[in-house]
Amino acid sequence: MTQEHLVLFTPSGKRGRFETGTPILTVARKLGVDLDSVCGGRGICSKCQITPGYGEFSKHGVTVAKGALSEWNSVEQRYKDKRGLIDGRRLGCQATVQGDIIIDVPPESQVHKQVVRKRAEVIDITVNPSTRLYYVEVEEPDMHNPSGDLERLIDALHKQWQLTDVQADFNILPQMQPVLRKGKWKVTCAVHYADGETNPQIIHLWPGLYEGTIYGMAVDLGSTTIAAHLCDLRTGEVIASSGLMNPQIRFGEDLMSRVSYAMMNKGGDKEMTRAVRDGMDALFTQISDDAEIDKNLIMDAVFVCNPVMHHLFLGIDPFELGQAPFALATSNALRLFANQLDIKIHPSARIYILPCIAGHVGADAAAVALSEAPNKSEDLVLVVDVGTNAEILLGNKEKVLACSSPTGPAFEGAQISSGQRAAPGAIEKVEIDSVTKDPRFRVIGCELWSDEDGFWEAIKDSGVTGICGSGIIEAIAEMRMAGLLDPSGLIGSSEQTGTERCVLDGRTHSYVMYDGGLAGGPKITVTNPDIRAIQMAKAALYSGARLLMDKFGVDKVDRVVLAGAFGAHISPKHAMVLGMIPDVPFEKVTSAGNAAGTGARIALIDISQRAAIEQTVGRIEKIETAIEPKFQEHFVNASAIPNSGDPFTLLRTTVPLPDVNFNTGGGLSNGSGRRRRRR
Amino acid sequence: MTQEHLVLFTPSGKRGRFETGTPILTVARKLGVDLDSVCGGRGICSKCQITPGYGEFSKHGVTVAKGALSEWNSVEQRYKDKRGLIDGRRLGCQATVQGDIIIDVPPESQVHKQVVRKRAEVIDITVNPSTRLYYVEVEEPDMHNPSGDLERLIDALHKQWQLTDVQADFNILPQMQPVLRKGKWKVTCAVHYADGETNPQIIHLWPGLYEGTIYGMAVDLGSTTIAAHLCDLRTGEVIASSGLMNPQIRFGEDLMSRVSYAMMNKGGDKEMTRAVRDGMDALFTQISDDAEIDKNLIMDAVFVCNPVMHHLFLGIDPFELGQAPFALATSNALRLFANQLDIKIHPSARIYILPCIAGHVGADAAAVALSEAPNKSEDLVLVVDVGTNAEILLGNKEKVLACSSPTGPAFEGAQISSGQRAAPGAIEKVEIDSVTKDPRFRVIGCELWSDEDGFWEAIKDSGVTGICGSGIIEAIAEMRMAGLLDPSGLIGSSEQTGTERCVLDGRTHSYVMYDGGLAGGPKITVTNPDIRAIQMAKAALYSGARLLMDKFGVDKVDRVVLAGAFGAHISPKHAMVLGMIPDVPFEKVTSAGNAAGTGARIALIDISQRAAIEQTVGRIEKIETAIEPKFQEHFVNASAIPNSGDPFTLLRTTVPLPDVNFNTGGGLSNGSGRRRRRR
Repeated sequence: MTQEHLVLFTPSGKRGRFETGTPILTVARKLGVDLDSVCGGRGICSKCQITPGYGEFSKHGVTVAKGALSEWNSVEQRYKDKRGLIDGRRLGCQATVQGDIIIDVPPESQVHKQVVRKRAEVIDITVNPSTRLYYVEVEEPDMHNPSGDLERLIDALHKQWQLTDVQADFNILPQMQPVLRKGKWKVTCAVHYADGETNPQIIHLWPGLYEGTIYGMAVDLGSTTIAAHLCDLRTGEVIASSGLMNPQIRFGEDLMSRVSYAMMNKGGDKEMTRAVRDGMDALFTQISDDAEIDKNLIMDAVFVCNPVMHHLFLGIDPFELGQAPFALATSNALRLFANQLDIKIHPSARIYILPCIAGHVGADAAAVALSEAPNKSEDLVLVVDVGTNAEILLGNKEKVLACSSPTGPAFEGAQISSGQRAAPGAIEKVEIDSVTKDPRFRVIGCELWSDEDGFWEAIKDSGVTGICGSGIIEAIAEMRMAGLLDPSGLIGSSEQTGTERCVLDGRTHSYVMYDGGLAGGPKITVTNPDIRAIQMAKAALYSGARLLMDKFGVDKVDRVVLAGAFGAHISPKHAMVLGMIPDVPFEKVTSAGNAAGTGARIALIDISQRAAIEQTVGRIEKIETAIEPKFQEHFVNASAIPNSGDPFTLLRTTVPLPDVNFNTGGGLSNGSGRRRRRR
Repeated sequence: MTQEHLVLFTPSGKRGRFETGTPILTVARKLGVDLDSVCGGRGICSKCQITPGYGEFSKHGVTVAKGALSEWNSVEQRYKDKRGLIDGRRLGCQATVQGDIIIDVPPESQVHKQVVRKRAEVIDITVNPSTRLYYVEVEEPDMHNPSGDLERLIDALHKQWQLTDVQADFNILPQMQPVLRKGKWKVTCAVHYADGETNPQIIHLWPGLYEGTIYGMAVDLGSTTIAAHLCDLRTGEVIASSGLMNPQIRFGEDLMSRVSYAMMNKGGDKEMTRAVRDGMDALFTQISDDAEIDKNLIMDAVFVCNPVMHHLFLGIDPFELGQAPFALATSNALRLFANQLDIKIHPSARIYILPCIAGHVGADAAAVALSEAPNKSEDLVLVVDVGTNAEILLGNKEKVLACSSPTGPAFEGAQISSGQRAAPGAIEKVEIDSVTKDPRFRVIGCELWSDEDGFWEAIKDSGVTGICGSGIIEAIAEMRMAGLLDPSGLIGSSEQTGTERCVLDGRTHSYVMYDGGLAGGPKITVTNPDIRAIQMAKAALYSGARLLMDKFGVDKVDRVVLAGAFGAHISPKHAMVLGMIPDVPFEKVTSAGNAAGTGARIALIDISQRAAIEQTVGRIEKIETAIEPKFQEHFVNASAIPNSGDPFTLLRTTVPLPDVNFNTGGGLSNGSGRRRRRR
């Protein structure tokens, strides 16, 4: 007489009635409960660990008696002796139903684990990778019924794992027969699930049960830096991260100079393609070495990049991106093989490149959209990815707009007299006393302020070498708040400002931030041309945001997300003093860090997000700033550093800006920004 | 007022009524009439030429008046002036319906042309290639509605040619933007239609209308020779053919010696893979040079080969094929990229390899099955592909059986004392006078018999150098018919035979065919070991055929097809005297020439035949001779060269064989064949 018992799973809450003797793994499969297994229930992989609950569960109305599961068996004991098993855990493929039972599936036994992200406002990532492991037992060849070893392997995947239409990557053919025999017809397959329409493909084989893991790489290929995260494709976790200067830097600092290089030098695009691919290979090697893993275990990689990097990485001359109408060769997402881009990881590794949004708004912006999901936001969010070009997204669940704005490299410390890249010794934070007009600052590599004890001792190795992008923004904003600058951006003389730090410098004035003269160090000043460069950059950024707001038909946004490595270091207060972003309450400005890299990681870990972002990008409305007359108008109006008369109402209550004007009628013209106010 | 007119197409017979002014190309498309066009009706490609018929067509009940088509127009005149147009022809895209009309579509204007094959018993090939040309006009980029150039190109293929889900091969990306602009947004695309489930792929682009053609290569990769046909993919015609010795010969003459080489020498399989791929590349270069075409215009290639060649070509160690159970790595058809096999044709060229039937019956046998179609035969046909291994197919539309039989290299002139490959100077045809016992012969490279005037002058360059495979078969059969051999294969002494040409040679006798001694040439004899080698080979062949007949449950077959280059040179009479094949009337023995090569060509020209042969192969019943006790039994019984007592009834009436027996009790034993008769 067979009897049925209630089986209830937590955390899913799924339940059903099953006959005495049914293995818990079978129950889980029948109920669609997310319980992992690589060996398919053969008691050798231990991925299906579960925790039975005993006692009274009044919430569920169930009382679980001691004998509700079959007794601890020798397979479980052997596994525990060999590999260890947490007390109270059972193997789901061994333990069978004997009575009403409550089964908890611990997170590590779930196939679709959640990768918890630190920031509260973003959703967790579900582990749903392109490539998975399956252990199978393959029928041996039979002369009476001849068929290829591969056909029998595919048949085993079908019968034992219900995988249909599986194909084999060409690269596995030479290794397959020895591996099958070495494993005595038991093998573990790495199967790549394309998210498109292609069939699943076997891309690797191990003899017997492979107990290791496989990896993927999420890469943000920027004009200046290449940043990559090595991820475990079974857990979704980041194993190692590293970055590298983009070796293309030697062909030009910013995108347009690289496009020019390609235009002016025959074969220049090929040189740059070679450079970036070599750099990528070096970075992958470095990360693999750091993590002490075999590069051949990297079986998937996702890339995000701006359109020029996108084309150069793919081996496409970026010529057309250098001139209107800025035609991309292709805007759709790309599914390629690693070896097509000379990336030396697993020989059958796949590559996914996110779609580009438009000629100036690349796959990096798409990745930001994936990470920050403005299309799912209830309130109106402005997402700004600040780099040499700023990519700007504005939207909510109704609609998302995107544009790109040519901020130039000033925000990265280029074109600034004392500017430098973010590196030890660079001033990154600045405060100027509104009474003494003296600065204090912090440099990268030291937590102390320059007026704190031990500062000079702590930085004696690096010294103070220059100002990085976030430093110059703070310096200028602080100068404005301390009354050293007027709204047009003009630095006052020592007489006007009352500090000897304001010195005559050509026909304008400069502010001396630090004079290392006696110590043999540099003299670090903020000059009026520096301020002009930052004004141009921030005006471009602000104008792009304003243009999107016009198109959206709004006057203000609910919140601002600053993305990009640089965005992570900007203080919201200084950004708003400078007029980089539209005004919102400080607490509504958050930093997303490298959101593009995070987007790449999401697309790597959860392939369902690939089709999702492709759909999202298809629905994003693209605005081309170059042909919008309003952009020019906003730009002209946005170069000023606002004084108290502007509509910065929230800010004004926090940071009253002095209403000074240093324009003497002579010297450098402050241009059109002089008399106009923003908006 | 619009009026409708009858339009009737020949040869299809399709008809319909259409409004005044409808272009004939449009009518053809609506009726599903097979009328070619590359430019899509723009009057520039001239592929849609048609011939209107005027006058009374009583058969169709139509009278066509002079003005039934619109007047000859300037587009047609310009085309005629520039390229020429046969009188009476019109362009289907220009001529419009004005009255009832009969339109003939000449063969060269049909998309699915028929490639007429010379042999009456086989069907013609329909031109339905993997790769086709499409001319499109692409929308220019628009900043207001940014999209990639590729996306607009795909859109044009969709809108102008109704091609859906087109993708682009990665290789076209770097060239696409310059080509689109060079062609002023008009381009011709080569689109590869996979016959599987993958989407059509753009693999090449030409600016403007490309008026040339594209090519494919059909290759029969044999153990000894590689033969390839270069075909025009638009017409299906063979443009050039060539062959090359398989460079693997240096690793072993026959398949098993190559498998042994791989077993005995570490990396030996890699060496052989390298050798055959290099050879393939050399052959492709040679054919392209001969035909004066650009190798990059070869966009598809089909390969057929036996299992060992198949594995070595793919880079798979053939180790498993050298031992029971003879497991193939994969038996299914393969769809690959040319560059995966290091074949340097078009960078995106595809490769198709036919399925293997079993461990000993390869893709070459599948190609023979495709060419000779036993599965469609009304009568029972035995198809024998004679080479180092013989592949044998037996069947009709009900059922097809296949096996392979290890004939060894004797049929190719190897292991024969005076044997040589088929080359100028080799004896290929032999007649022995039954009275004088003197031979006359023909050598390759000369149409004269050796006793005809001018023979020696004609062959003075090559001389007489040896006997090739077909020559040794004829020689032995003629010796048997002239009473020089007894049924067991023993050569009589000069006393027994009455000719001095039979000389003592060790413990047996040899027959002197030609003595070039005085002229400094070789002495060409047929020795008893030669006869033994041929007996073994023919016994293997015959036993395989008999085994299939047993399995089929028949005692005789209706017809025999001899395939293979060697099969083309065997005379049916001699083959039957020797007992190579079961007896059928002479006129029921046909030669299919290189049927494997023809099968490759069919799969190249008509992709629908790929799925078809895969299905056919799936249904073929495989017989493994190595494990069939009956095979051994047949083999033992089949080594004799039958005398008049055997059941060769049909043959016996034609060629009475002398009932001699030269066995003296001493000398070489004739083994088990001595007293037994066949069957």
